[in-house]
Amino acid sequence: MVIKIAKHAGFCFGVKRAIQIATDSARVCENIVTLGPLIHNPQMVAKLREMGIDHVDTVDDVKKGDTVIVRSHGIPKPELERLRANGNTIIDATCPYVSKTQENAKKLREMGFEVVILGDGLHPEVIALQSYVDNEALVVNGADELPSRHFPRMGIISQTTQVIENYQQLVYKAVPLCEHLYLMNTICNATSIRQEYTEKLASESDLMIVVGGRNSSNTKMLARISTGLTETHHIETADELDPLWLGGKENIGISAGASTPDWIILDVYNRIKQYKGNWEFEAVNVEEIPGYKEE
Amino acid sequence: MVIKIAKHAGFCFGVKRAIQIATDSARVCENIVTLGPLIHNPQMVAKLREMGIDHVDTVDDVKKGDTVIVRSHGIPKPELERLRANGNTIIDATCPYVSKTQENAKKLREMGFEVVILGDGLHPEVIALQSYVDNEALVVNGADELPSRHFPRMGIISQTTQVIENYQQLVYKAVPLCEHLYLMNTICNATSIRQEYTEKLASESDLMIVVGGRNSSNTKMLARISTGLTETHHIETADELDPLWLGGKENIGISAGASTPDWIILDVYNRIKQYKGNWEFEAVNVEEIPGYKEE
Repeated sequence: MVIKIAKHAGFCFGVKRAIQIATDSARVCENIVTLGPLIHNPQMVAKLREMGIDHVDTVDDVKKGDTVIVRSHGIPKPELERLRANGNTIIDATCPYVSKTQENAKKLREMGFEVVILGDGLHPEVIALQSYVDNEALVVNGADELPSRHFPRMGIISQTTQVIENYQQLVYKAVPLCEHLYLMNTICNATSIRQEYTEKLASESDLMIVVGGRNSSNTKMLARISTGLTETHHIETADELDPLWLGGKENIGISAGASTPDWIILDVYNRIKQYKGNWEFEAVNVEEIPGYKEE
Repeated sequence: MVIKIAKHAGFCFGVKRAIQIATDSARVCENIVTLGPLIHNPQMVAKLREMGIDHVDTVDDVKKGDTVIVRSHGIPKPELERLRANGNTIIDATCPYVSKTQENAKKLREMGFEVVILGDGLHPEVIALQSYVDNEALVVNGADELPSRHFPRMGIISQTTQVIENYQQLVYKAVPLCEHLYLMNTICNATSIRQEYTEKLASESDLMIVVGGRNSSNTKMLARISTGLTETHHIETADELDPLWLGGKENIGISAGASTPDWIILDVYNRIKQYKGNWEFEAVNVEEIPGYKEE
């Protein structure tokens, strides 16, 4: 009987960087707000609030003199321009991979391609992305949503947290519809690597606990991948762990989304340990647990 | 019991055009040669010879004063340049879709893409195509032949007679390997339409006769598609028809490649009729047969 944590579970580079930028800023500035939550994790957002970093929902809620942190998913260009016009100090914590996607979308449009975005149209990353192509991109969540019409020039980009197979299937459908098709692969490696290790662990486990915000797109994707392979529960915190799930299980796996802080993973791990004290615990990657403390 | 001819069997636009150009030229010029056979059909090539249009295999065999017809598949650029330098009159019967593919290959390379050609590396169309990218394209005959390495910028074009599914499968494999991937769909519509109707007819028939040159790439492809669905024989002429094939069959279908002249299809049709006089014959498209005479 063993419990393992998936390699590369938890924070990705972009999220680590955004939190670093935010905590560094909290040391030197006052009146800091983020426009929208900095990352999609309520517990981490609460922790930031303790440091004095609050979040507001719209530009209208930003006060004169506020320092505004642009979150990892980016924000729509017009909002950025309004903040600038209002004289607010802006600290840009947009993930560099997301910025790259925005640039690519803009480039595709300038090159005369009809831009198709593979992603969730309601996700802040996609909403921000749309603003870089004047909100004229066609957003599809999968191949099924691509209309079967002729596209003389189509350019496809993707939300950074998509699964590569979705992208491949979309392109497979698009090929016969297009004369020219320009693909920019903007799926973040960290996402696919995390998915790969989660898939691997799920296929070896008879129970998977996927930890992360319920509003976190990439966590939901991990849970979906894992659900296809074994019994899976998506939780936000250790308190949601139901000891009944653990009964009769031989191999338990834990994975976590890109916006899940290590201390939450650690909590989940320790809670399971509490229930299953006699098990073999095989920590991988969350800095090889037992006493691990994140900054 | 019924025999049908697949819609769109036989000559495509490019082949019709090349033969028209050749026969028109034969009326006004002397000493006409084609560099390589005009089309991949030995019987048609023999007919052209009767009109005084011979074919030579290399530029070295072209005599001073010869008028040279460039065949539908195109010829390598250096050969064209040598003919020009030698003062030969050149009549270009390259299929306009093939010319378009050559332009596209050149453009992709100029745009800094590593060019991948989906096709048969030994086919004259692909050999000619290669010359437009300084023979530096990677030629693959299917997804299996694409190496699994990183391609920062890949551009894919296709021999005009490929099946679209091969192209889609190649692209499916290429997507995760590339940062930028530019696809120009250079598969000729006529090819895919002919394939589609052949597939449809094969799925309704218990015997398919596919007519066309044994060196015709697109005829071989039709035979391959059909073989997956029903008993199929690839023949060049009616003389190869074995009456034993017809025994016990209820629905016989005929299809033919883009370089198969109507009179050969007509021959096959009439030969089967001879064996199966009491059958219902349902001609489609080869100008609705019975008395049909091609020019």
